[in-house]
Amino acid sequence: MRNVRIRVAYDGSRFFGWQRQDGFDSVQQALEEALSALCGSALSVHGAGRTDTGVHALGQVAHFHVETRLEDERLLHALNAHLPPGVVVQDLETCPDGFHARFDARSKRYLYRVVTGRFRPPHGAELALWVPHELDLAAMRAAGSALVGRHDFKAFSSTGSPRASTVREVQGLHFRAHRRGLSFVVQADGFLYNMVRAIAGTLIDVGRGRLDPGVVARALASGRRDEAGPTAPARGLYLLSVQYDVAVFGRDA
Amino acid sequence: MRNVRIRVAYDGSRFFGWQRQDGFDSVQQALEEALSALCGSALSVHGAGRTDTGVHALGQVAHFHVETRLEDERLLHALNAHLPPGVVVQDLETCPDGFHARFDARSKRYLYRVVTGRFRPPHGAELALWVPHELDLAAMRAAGSALVGRHDFKAFSSTGSPRASTVREVQGLHFRAHRRGLSFVVQADGFLYNMVRAIAGTLIDVGRGRLDPGVVARALASGRRDEAGPTAPARGLYLLSVQYDVAVFGRDA
Repeated sequence: MRNVRIRVAYDGSRFFGWQRQDGFDSVQQALEEALSALCGSALSVHGAGRTDTGVHALGQVAHFHVETRLEDERLLHALNAHLPPGVVVQDLETCPDGFHARFDARSKRYLYRVVTGRFRPPHGAELALWVPHELDLAAMRAAGSALVGRHDFKAFSSTGSPRASTVREVQGLHFRAHRRGLSFVVQADGFLYNMVRAIAGTLIDVGRGRLDPGVVARALASGRRDEAGPTAPARGLYLLSVQYDVAVFGRDA
Repeated sequence: MRNVRIRVAYDGSRFFGWQRQDGFDSVQQALEEALSALCGSALSVHGAGRTDTGVHALGQVAHFHVETRLEDERLLHALNAHLPPGVVVQDLETCPDGFHARFDARSKRYLYRVVTGRFRPPHGAELALWVPHELDLAAMRAAGSALVGRHDFKAFSSTGSPRASTVREVQGLHFRAHRRGLSFVVQADGFLYNMVRAIAGTLIDVGRGRLDPGVVARALASGRRDEAGPTAPARGLYLLSVQYDVAVFGRDA
């Protein structure tokens, strides 16, 4: 048996999330079925993070133990040939037996994409959130700066998944202006359920002028979900990359 | 009766082209049905150019004569509210009675988008052509420069629509490198059938090294279709804008 890790990109609008669920197409199931068809036995694929229905990935990482004589490069091509449209394995490498995509992850980066304009764009409706308002990027940056650092992010998560601790460290938050909209990338040592979508919803409301930039600091201090903005839709959200203490796929750690 | 012109964007993968055809969803039909529902009588929408199935538009221009008491701004919003997903009217204005979207067009610009990379991208497969090879942009520019000017473009058009003349003037050809691929914009006083797709297929083959950059000049000189490269797929092609002698939608002519 060999431990193999992969970097996966997928169109979240084509799947009912990452995690396998009976009767619904998931990314995990697509990968497990392709690998089982290739290698002739059932196996489990473990992802670095679960993504919800509609959430995309550009750099999800996963691992699995497999019995195959195919070399990495051949396995990569064979796997892609067996996968359905909307999911692509971009990198694949045999890794140390102990490597675990989730437990070993040191941090993750998520991207959120917003398209602005008076009317809904005709292309790629499932690939970004459309906001029919101009957004004040300076105000969004000002509000967002309060997120960086080690904080209790209780106000920026959905209830339903009780956790031992709601403290996380946001290591970076970077905005980019586009011709028709904006995007931001947030990196943290871990994310609570719906945390990036709550951050996105809050920052967008700041950008629209419906909330003042001080809302982020106030919500962090109170820990009250209703003090922050709404949970933004899944369609703008991308799992961008997962960082480990070791270099993976020939990239620096 | 009032003459009204519109600027329209659409996702070509959702329609069987611009032109109305019985039994197939076309952009023209979507617009005519939305306007008829709004204004209570059948009318005809005239586009600046026909686009084939799969070809997108970011700035198609069209006009129609309509009897309505709605002001332009109200008509614009009402029209968009009646249109199906994948087609959006971005601008609308009442124009001189004699304005004709097709006959008055002085030039048009088309965009062609190419995504490169080892594997098919999981997002937006219908929004660009995927080429699993690195492309030599310098060679493509060198080949493309021969297209600029007044030439007989017979070698860069599909037969089937005989025309009085196959001479056209390409007024500009500009490339842009992207992080994962490239795009080019071509402007001409008119385009033969499949002309941009034949240009794209030829330039891509030059970029891949399958054709040498001199192929464009040789094909222009001989007028032989089989001397140029293949017709590239519709999915990378966008009607970007239409130019008139007068300013339209508040933009310079």
